[in-house]
Amino acid sequence: MPRPIMLGIVGDSGSGKTTITRGIVRVLGQDQITDFCIDDYHRYDRKQRAERNITPLHPDCNYLDILAQHLEHLRANNPIMKPVYRHADGTFGAPDYLQPKRFVVAEGLLGFYTPELRDMFDVRVYLDPPEDLRRHWKVQRDCSRRGYTTDQVLAELDRREPDSEQFIRPQRHHADLVVSFQPPAPGADYEHLDAKLTLRDSLTHPDLSGVVADGVEDGLVLTERPGCQELYVPGKIPSERAAQLEETIWEKMHFAQHLRQEKLGEFTIGTELHRSDSLALVQLLILYHVLTARHLVSLGAQSSRGFESSELEELLATEQPA
Amino acid sequence: MPRPIMLGIVGDSGSGKTTITRGIVRVLGQDQITDFCIDDYHRYDRKQRAERNITPLHPDCNYLDILAQHLEHLRANNPIMKPVYRHADGTFGAPDYLQPKRFVVAEGLLGFYTPELRDMFDVRVYLDPPEDLRRHWKVQRDCSRRGYTTDQVLAELDRREPDSEQFIRPQRHHADLVVSFQPPAPGADYEHLDAKLTLRDSLTHPDLSGVVADGVEDGLVLTERPGCQELYVPGKIPSERAAQLEETIWEKMHFAQHLRQEKLGEFTIGTELHRSDSLALVQLLILYHVLTARHLVSLGAQSSRGFESSELEELLATEQPA
Repeated sequence: MPRPIMLGIVGDSGSGKTTITRGIVRVLGQDQITDFCIDDYHRYDRKQRAERNITPLHPDCNYLDILAQHLEHLRANNPIMKPVYRHADGTFGAPDYLQPKRFVVAEGLLGFYTPELRDMFDVRVYLDPPEDLRRHWKVQRDCSRRGYTTDQVLAELDRREPDSEQFIRPQRHHADLVVSFQPPAPGADYEHLDAKLTLRDSLTHPDLSGVVADGVEDGLVLTERPGCQELYVPGKIPSERAAQLEETIWEKMHFAQHLRQEKLGEFTIGTELHRSDSLALVQLLILYHVLTARHLVSLGAQSSRGFESSELEELLATEQPA
Repeated sequence: MPRPIMLGIVGDSGSGKTTITRGIVRVLGQDQITDFCIDDYHRYDRKQRAERNITPLHPDCNYLDILAQHLEHLRANNPIMKPVYRHADGTFGAPDYLQPKRFVVAEGLLGFYTPELRDMFDVRVYLDPPEDLRRHWKVQRDCSRRGYTTDQVLAELDRREPDSEQFIRPQRHHADLVVSFQPPAPGADYEHLDAKLTLRDSLTHPDLSGVVADGVEDGLVLTERPGCQELYVPGKIPSERAAQLEETIWEKMHFAQHLRQEKLGEFTIGTELHRSDSLALVQLLILYHVLTARHLVSLGAQSSRGFESSELEELLATEQPA
């Protein structure tokens, strides 16, 4: 069995990690995925953090050495004994024995903090909503699902801000994809948010210029920048344009057609289920990289990095060995 | 810093692992030793074992793969996150972050069960008291220190016997030193037990023929056998003979003279402290191997195995690099 494909989803608390991951898990199948929470590697429990006046965002508050060791084992198809942090009461429980499946999705705060950690991922995604949007999301979730008051959540955000600035946000520079949903215009709803994607050259992204080039009038814009492309997907993208873009991406993955289902783009506001085309496209782009990495590793490649566009296209057209 | 020296002390429950280890820790210094309990790697807690009718002696009841992984990390001077089994209530607690010190002493039931595990140890000691002596020791300890009744302990011993026979005892074939204290003669006390040691050729043992050769009349006997020597140390060995033997062993370790103190041979019966010359000699022989391994690894050797006697003597006479 080839080694698992490692996807890292990093971002501050409330930045949308779970929402992004959910669609990816639905498409790949829960039985194919080892869901791995990086924040289980805290060094101190809630009480100890309070005593030391340290936030969980601080690298010193986490066993990043053990995290790197465990990610390396998972990548090599070895089992690990994963620590367990219990958010409910802020203490540690008995560790879990974890055997990696075909895909490992590691979510959390500090996954790209050290070179050792970054090296473990085939696909590195950083979620980077503007702070006002993240605050809105975090208040909404922590109040509705975790039983905090708005004042408590806002106070905690302020307390953590220096560490967010110093340790969390700089990690965006090390991501292959930076996803930045945009706050709604004043008075607009939170259902159809624009997405600004930075697609770094550290991975070879699918060529979308054919679809997007003439899209200036509907707000779908692809901009070349040094070292990256920037893709702007309007939240209210016409559905035929969204479908066209999806089609273009799926077409490049003939080896994964059996996964093509309408499962992307779902999210919740409170307990209500919604769907967003821009979210679906973000998830599909991540899936593209995960699935091409899977295909390339199955063909014997060490990773999916460092390929020229033409070379990659040829390899993606290759049938997977039986 | 050179890698830690790995000592494995394996034997059934109540075979004397803690007693043997205590003297070694006292000489090397607690601050130099990472004490590592193999039985923390149980797969099931007490309740789950009862439900499955499986004993902790069964390999399937332990994460031996994770144990081997962790021993390999410790040997390579890497930290680990060690699971914790709580004997008090038979459940698992939060894991411990462990950074190896100069010596790692791993004690437990199944440390030599697989080749992967055995390969991790510089010195492999198996404790092999005859069953009647082990039953006596286990009853004594479990009743006085762990609050069980004699009947409970004996019933548990019977329940575990098939697994002891199948999984634990065969490990003695893989030890460098097999230590077998002998039950006292009828009516005699448990204070001065004879020790029968099997010294396998898998390590180069100190040459004791000069001291022991003429010792037939006092019961100190060294016998050459295929693949090993057998050393018989009477519990009532005259103290000048014991001192002579100790002197011979210490003389071969000029690099470790600063550790030469009267700390070996102590043990408890109930809560009373006693001293035994045969126990002290067993501990000193183990120490000899641990300290020569330390010296050889400091000199750049991969391990202390596979040396000819003469080659080893020359290396042990070499000054340690500053």
